[in-house]
Amino acid sequence: MSLKMTQDQLAEFLVAEFPQVAGDFAIEDVGENRIRVRLVTEERHLRPGGTVSGPTMFALADVSVYLAILAMIGPRALAVTTNCSIDFMRKPAAGADLIAECRLLKLGRVLAVGEVLLFSQGVEAPVARASLTYSIPPG
Amino acid sequence: MSLKMTQDQLAEFLVAEFPQVAGDFAIEDVGENRIRVRLVTEERHLRPGGTVSGPTMFALADVSVYLAILAMIGPRALAVTTNCSIDFMRKPAAGADLIAECRLLKLGRVLAVGEVLLFSQGVEAPVARASLTYSIPPG
Amino acid sequence: MSLKMTQDQLAEFLVAEFPQVAGDFAIEDVGENRIRVRLVTEERHLRPGGTVSGPTMFALADVSVYLAILAMIGPRALAVTTNCSIDFMRKPAAGADLIAECRLLKLGRVLAVGEVLLFSQGVEAPVARASLTYSIPPG
Amino acid sequence: MSLKMTQDQLAEFLVAEFPQVAGDFAIEDVGENRIRVRLVTEERHLRPGGTVSGPTMFALADVSVYLAILAMIGPRALAVTTNCSIDFMRKPAAGADLIAECRLLKLGRVLAVGEVLLFSQGVEAPVARASLTYSIPPG
Repeated sequence: MSLKMTQDQLAEFLVAEFPQVAGDFAIEDVGENRIRVRLVTEERHLRPGGTVSGPTMFALADVSVYLAILAMIGPRALAVTTNCSIDFMRKPAAGADLIAECRLLKLGRVLAVGEVLLFSQGVEAPVARASLTYSIPPG
Repeated sequence: MSLKMTQDQLAEFLVAEFPQVAGDFAIEDVGENRIRVRLVTEERHLRPGGTVSGPTMFALADVSVYLAILAMIGPRALAVTTNCSIDFMRKPAAGADLIAECRLLKLGRVLAVGEVLLFSQGVEAPVARASLTYSIPPG
Repeated sequence: MSLKMTQDQLAEFLVAEFPQVAGDFAIEDVGENRIRVRLVTEERHLRPGGTVSGPTMFALADVSVYLAILAMIGPRALAVTTNCSIDFMRKPAAGADLIAECRLLKLGRVLAVGEVLLFSQGVEAPVARASLTYSIPPG
Repeated sequence: MSLKMTQDQLAEFLVAEFPQVAGDFAIEDVGENRIRVRLVTEERHLRPGGTVSGPTMFALADVSVYLAILAMIGPRALAVTTNCSIDFMRKPAAGADLIAECRLLKLGRVLAVGEVLLFSQGVEAPVARASLTYSIPPG
């Protein structure tokens, strides 16, 4: 195995290409076809009651698959999400950080598929699951 | 037909219950099992290049189905999204507003299903489609 | 508009390439980016109670998008389904034929997206909705 | 942990309630919130080239989640699929059996969510992934 980008390079890429959102996400671990990303929760991510909003969970799942792909193929800002299916299964715990555990199931020449489980830190049952397809532009 | 909430009542409900995001969305038209909602685009919704971000498109589709359901059943803040499938088909036009055309396909006792097409204003081909399921708490 | 394949050509193609299932489906109407296909119901498509099974509904939605694409691009047996999201919303009417109304939302160089509503004949409310993505091999 | 139905009881239930398809599926292992099911491949499941068809893969994923739920809650024929999202990632190996590895992610009072990976026997990379939601009728 050889990753094309390290954890630090991924973080720098995010800051350079997506400055609006880079601060929302902390890469915790990256490996072959997998990554763990933490949401750095801010007030704007929350709904009444203090739980993380649906769009924020979508964003966390989406960025996780994106970074997992980049770690494998190198920096290509133009990879784009073509499909996402997401199941919201439990209310996130108020005040707990949200963690994405992502795994790439396919990394083809033109399409990649990743799946993600989202957890409230310290709670075993996942709050959401998502699967995403990315279209990869010709290198 | 009789809607349980008018366009104005829906807008007031959004402000009261979801003050963080209410300003992002303008209800343009509401009818039996359908609604049209416009994204009030702000800098924070955009990606480099000036196009609307994926999480923002998700949020617009999600709120549209939510409001279409509330218009039919009355104010119940506790209706929750259980599933969303979204296809991102074209890059939104830079600088153009995003419009959601939503239709409820099912409004059952415990589950509702809505579908949404998202358009860049003035462009015929949709930028995204989404289908969402909501779980409706006992009245 | 000019379709690359007529209704008869599509039916012949189905018989030639997919002889196991061609008899299950009758093309009722085809146009630019749309098609209507009827399930020719057989005992093996049914569940106890006489309603059409889930896998049969999936098959009807899948073949409808496939044929809608072929009508636009010509015969390419190698187009393959990469994703399907399907919502089963109502029990099909026992003894009624099942009709698929399909529309292509995107027909790109490498990906096509279609959406389908399935109806029990004579019933207004749809029994299911589906959205499918096809990968199109280089011509 | 205590399963409400054993592997044998699940198999008998399938024969009694779904005689048309029971012979297609062999339960290989069942545990708390998980099951492994094998497709007993017949000519009618195949496409030209000898690979398993999309509707057959859907059927295998669907029955796997259904049986995993029944093992946990006991025999309730009326549990129904409300949503399925499936990604077809690789062509199944011709002549190889298809295996479903299913896990329940949520088993609530009214909704259950399961995820499934489908493998061609002897091949490490999955051919498909699916997530399904079931609606559980009041007991």
